[in-house]
Amino acid sequence: MTLIEECEAGVPAFVKEAAKNEPVSGQKLAKLVKRGHAVIPRNLKHDPIPKPIGRGLKVKINVNIGTSETQSDVNKELEKVKIAEKYGADSIMDLSTGGDIDKIRKKIIESTDLPVGTVPIYQCGLIKARESAIVEMTSDDIFNGIKKHAEEGVDFVTVHCGVTKKAVDSLKESGRLTDVVSRGGSFLTAWILHNGEENPLYSEFDYLLEMAKEYDLTLSLGDGFRPGSIADATDRPQIQELITLGELVKRCRSEKVQAMVEGPGHVPIDQISANVKIQKELCNGAPFYVLGPLVTDFAPGYDHISGAIGGAIAAYKGADFLCYVTPAEHLGLPDIDDVKEGTIASKIAAHAADIARGIDLDVDHSISKARKELDWDKMFDKVVDPDKAKKFRKKKNLSDEEACSMCGDVCAIKMVNKYLNG
Amino acid sequence: MTLIEECEAGVPAFVKEAAKNEPVSGQKLAKLVKRGHAVIPRNLKHDPIPKPIGRGLKVKINVNIGTSETQSDVNKELEKVKIAEKYGADSIMDLSTGGDIDKIRKKIIESTDLPVGTVPIYQCGLIKARESAIVEMTSDDIFNGIKKHAEEGVDFVTVHCGVTKKAVDSLKESGRLTDVVSRGGSFLTAWILHNGEENPLYSEFDYLLEMAKEYDLTLSLGDGFRPGSIADATDRPQIQELITLGELVKRCRSEKVQAMVEGPGHVPIDQISANVKIQKELCNGAPFYVLGPLVTDFAPGYDHISGAIGGAIAAYKGADFLCYVTPAEHLGLPDIDDVKEGTIASKIAAHAADIARGIDLDVDHSISKARKELDWDKMFDKVVDPDKAKKFRKKKNLSDEEACSMCGDVCAIKMVNKYLNG
Repeated sequence: MTLIEECEAGVPAFVKEAAKNEPVSGQKLAKLVKRGHAVIPRNLKHDPIPKPIGRGLKVKINVNIGTSETQSDVNKELEKVKIAEKYGADSIMDLSTGGDIDKIRKKIIESTDLPVGTVPIYQCGLIKARESAIVEMTSDDIFNGIKKHAEEGVDFVTVHCGVTKKAVDSLKESGRLTDVVSRGGSFLTAWILHNGEENPLYSEFDYLLEMAKEYDLTLSLGDGFRPGSIADATDRPQIQELITLGELVKRCRSEKVQAMVEGPGHVPIDQISANVKIQKELCNGAPFYVLGPLVTDFAPGYDHISGAIGGAIAAYKGADFLCYVTPAEHLGLPDIDDVKEGTIASKIAAHAADIARGIDLDVDHSISKARKELDWDKMFDKVVDPDKAKKFRKKKNLSDEEACSMCGDVCAIKMVNKYLNG
Repeated sequence: MTLIEECEAGVPAFVKEAAKNEPVSGQKLAKLVKRGHAVIPRNLKHDPIPKPIGRGLKVKINVNIGTSETQSDVNKELEKVKIAEKYGADSIMDLSTGGDIDKIRKKIIESTDLPVGTVPIYQCGLIKARESAIVEMTSDDIFNGIKKHAEEGVDFVTVHCGVTKKAVDSLKESGRLTDVVSRGGSFLTAWILHNGEENPLYSEFDYLLEMAKEYDLTLSLGDGFRPGSIADATDRPQIQELITLGELVKRCRSEKVQAMVEGPGHVPIDQISANVKIQKELCNGAPFYVLGPLVTDFAPGYDHISGAIGGAIAAYKGADFLCYVTPAEHLGLPDIDDVKEGTIASKIAAHAADIARGIDLDVDHSISKARKELDWDKMFDKVVDPDKAKKFRKKKNLSDEEACSMCGDVCAIKMVNKYLNG
């Protein structure tokens, strides 16, 4: 049975477990899953920690790792997994495109208890590229690629089912600035243009559903036409694709397959709220998984900050799942430090959105209470990165034990504690 | 004549110059200054680059530097000024509290063409602290301190005029979590509690106006009771003080003195919009100068990110001037790297807000156009930190000249350029 079917029958243990860290009961969460307003990625061949994603739940963050042709050290990727876990990742996506991709994926699944996602078309396209050309992929290649990942225990897969002939037509007419920046989207766009056929992930969607059902694989409906620049945000190709994804969500639900929808990309602040609203409406409340969004194109090297701004706003407005962005975005593959910086920035965004929605306020309260008491150890206990906070304080505070070097003896807190509370 | 008086008579050259980089004409800007909806800090004894702050203008950012008792190397502070200028600071505030404060301030004013601000009560309180205790400051000490800074060419000063007896009463009754975290606010709160008298900056506000008028000094009405934790945001002491600041704005205007109002602090995302709105209403459209705001208490070591999230939202909603926050906030005095990180994060927030308000979109468009053309040099020309972007790309891309190591040969842009545009 898929999780949706289980939830129709009652409250499964997996859902009860998932609700423990959430502001909702197991019963309520089962209802959300049943309706498709929340997903809890899993695979009948895998047993990850349940990380529920959806309406009214704590905002979750995903960390992308993976090799490329020029950087394919497995151990480095496994180290990235550890760093991601340490700083609060809720899932890991393996986007490897170099080295022994099968082995890397297997090792990653073995090394973490978090749900693991992939984009199977990457591997499938690359195998074909080595033989001939990506556009020579067959429908069988594509589906066999997905099946292989599902069989190995991957919990959710990105599938760019909305890159249809119609969407490509819309793209051609749109005069977009940056065309297609989604890698999977670019494979399928090229495939459609080269072969003149419909995207198999769309035309044979029923077959995909059958497969997803067999493993209880969560489908993450990818946004192949997500805007890659501020100029392209909320344009016709993007919304055309979103309409299709909304139809597919409906088909997922009737087959009891868990589905979420991926979203932009580059979006200026004034359009984020509308993007969340339109996704929620067109996709009937399906969980919204956003990449960033980035609120400007001008910050390569600092896109984790640009993404944290967009992610916090999107999540506050109702997005459920934030794909982290690292400082290396647009420039190269992230190294371990980039993964750390990206995870933390995304965690700050998610937590800030939770607070704004009335969730997890206790964390901040206890930190601020400790700050007022100038109890640094207690304060550092609950902050996003205790090691960095401690290191900073140590480096900057050579003399004074109680206050910090910013104000030293003229610490506002010390001053007021003395006259107001003393 | 003060700038407001000059604007009543026509469009002064200083205002014409200021309008050159803004989305408004000199005439419109003069109108904004006349009405008090924009300020352009200057001092009749100083001639800074005009940096207009206010309604409909580009969002400006301020960088705080300055020594403390344990770190008082003048040259380091001057290096911070250079870094701040390089990454887009629009003003510098010298908050020095250690070493030869007079000399440091003089050197900073000499070293930059940007407008310079100070918080005169810091120095005044510290002199008193060395003699006896901060709470022993007299009204003369306070005003002479301000006069000294004005005489030396400081363009704007933070004055905590709203920390009144009434506001302190409100504070006492409020059961706040973190009481007072503003340093100036804490001096005056302690002073009121110790002396039982009204804050001279409030009771003798007319004298302050006289002095400000003499030098055409811009008053930045400080928020001594800005919330220092998420729990305290938008509470009675904060709003009580804001009501007073709004009354004082009116008095500034009738004396033709430029005034802006400082704002929080720590504010959860859901309250930022209301904070901006209430400030604009209570203060009759006076420019809003926000510190951060920080959207969570849990990110010491990363408060530049937390502040960038809050600052971007506040500026999009109408805040005019962002005080940067560095990674060292809450932990110690920022070093040069912290100043760089803080300035850039704040610049990203300001630029993202500008974009969302339809300003400076060309910057992003030209960067994204270059990205599509895989013209890295052209792209890096206009990004927030060209050096870092270049270094990242160089480090991460050893083999491929055209694409980046993230996708290598399977670069989405290359793929689509070939099939869609090729």
